[in-house]
Amino acid sequence: MAGTNKSRAASIGDGPAIILVEPQMGENIGMAARAMLNSSLGDLRLVRPRDVWPNPKSFHTASGADAVVDAARVFETTADAVADLNRVYAATARPRDMIKEVLTPRRGAAEMRSAVAEGDRIGILFGGERAGLDNDDIALADVVLQAPLNPAFSSLNLGHAVLIATYEWYQAGDETPSAHLPEGRTQPATKEELIGFFKRLEGALDDCGFMHVAEKRPIMVRNIRNIFQRANLMEQEVRTLHGIVSCLTKGRE
Amino acid sequence: MAGTNKSRAASIGDGPAIILVEPQMGENIGMAARAMLNSSLGDLRLVRPRDVWPNPKSFHTASGADAVVDAARVFETTADAVADLNRVYAATARPRDMIKEVLTPRRGAAEMRSAVAEGDRIGILFGGERAGLDNDDIALADVVLQAPLNPAFSSLNLGHAVLIATYEWYQAGDETPSAHLPEGRTQPATKEELIGFFKRLEGALDDCGFMHVAEKRPIMVRNIRNIFQRANLMEQEVRTLHGIVSCLTKGRE
Repeated sequence: MAGTNKSRAASIGDGPAIILVEPQMGENIGMAARAMLNSSLGDLRLVRPRDVWPNPKSFHTASGADAVVDAARVFETTADAVADLNRVYAATARPRDMIKEVLTPRRGAAEMRSAVAEGDRIGILFGGERAGLDNDDIALADVVLQAPLNPAFSSLNLGHAVLIATYEWYQAGDETPSAHLPEGRTQPATKEELIGFFKRLEGALDDCGFMHVAEKRPIMVRNIRNIFQRANLMEQEVRTLHGIVSCLTKGRE
Repeated sequence: MAGTNKSRAASIGDGPAIILVEPQMGENIGMAARAMLNSSLGDLRLVRPRDVWPNPKSFHTASGADAVVDAARVFETTADAVADLNRVYAATARPRDMIKEVLTPRRGAAEMRSAVAEGDRIGILFGGERAGLDNDDIALADVVLQAPLNPAFSSLNLGHAVLIATYEWYQAGDETPSAHLPEGRTQPATKEELIGFFKRLEGALDDCGFMHVAEKRPIMVRNIRNIFQRANLMEQEVRTLHGIVSCLTKGRE
């Protein structure tokens, strides 16, 4: 069903709202929106943005995530922005002397997935570029999110901070295998295909005298076979290698 | 020992070189440098950057990661940029029809840590803003890195793409507990302290008649105790709660 940009953003799901408190640069708001849509999130909330809203610079850096920028809502206070939520995370490098549980973004994302599955409405607070979240904002949160980073240079760009949280949210719900070969028209070669190529190559190498020292032939064969074994060849690649041997021997016959 | 910015960047370690192929916007190069230093990486390489290098815009968005920008090296070809490496990863959303293993950034980062521990020199290729890596660049890589993201909006900002890879690299070597309370002057309350507070509160509630229906008293006590049990109180917080009860009862005595 075709929908407007706004309805598309609104239909994105029940993931965390992203709440930027006193964001300064429109560019960063747009980058945050882009990072959100990269992770299928659409509920962007702004508390007292410094510049006039909507901000054309945000649409520019959103690079196509216009639906998220369009649907962003502006609030006067952080308390207003989180009023409809029942679980709030504060992303901050500095949980200054507060007794509040600190989670890595990875652990936090796993917990958020559980909370949303149980029907919780959740959000993540991010502070502005200059000073981050203040203690009163953090006190509104249930939990602090803090990314382990270079302790000598841990200050994140605002869009980057949003990306880490939203990326982890997406990963926590994703089941892509951690390693795979791209799907395509070709299959991994069978051992029969591989051994067929080995015999063809070894025959050609016998013909050209590459393995003329008989007592060295077995170890040379093993070494050459190991090179191609290690390559985890696809059947299409075995055909290519047959073609290479054919071509290289053509002139000699 | 004090060092120049350059030597600081160079001493950052043996993590992956970050190689940007035909990057266009200086801002994105600076953001990539910032993301690198956030993850203790310092070896930035640029292949045919569009604009003149050094680029003042890169220093601006690097926000203090000047050492990384300063130390960046420019190359004419991707082959030149990877010449000293022996394992190369290509970050791309589109491994277009190539038979090459695809890893998630998380799995890739774990593999990179192992490779570096074994003495490998590694690097990660990123394409420019407009078109990403081309097939000839990808063919120079051993493995493709592809972040699972919203299939309907998977195009990442260049700095964001670098951040995902470098963030995962850092996490793969980090041992921060996934959940903790900030270290401070206070300890979790013992059960003795907690029960001491319960008795104090319940006594005060008996005095003011809150629990005057005798048969309901046990369930009310359990419900109230559960509220405070769930809060995982610190000993400092138990003292605060004693103070609250003292203050609230003061007028009545």
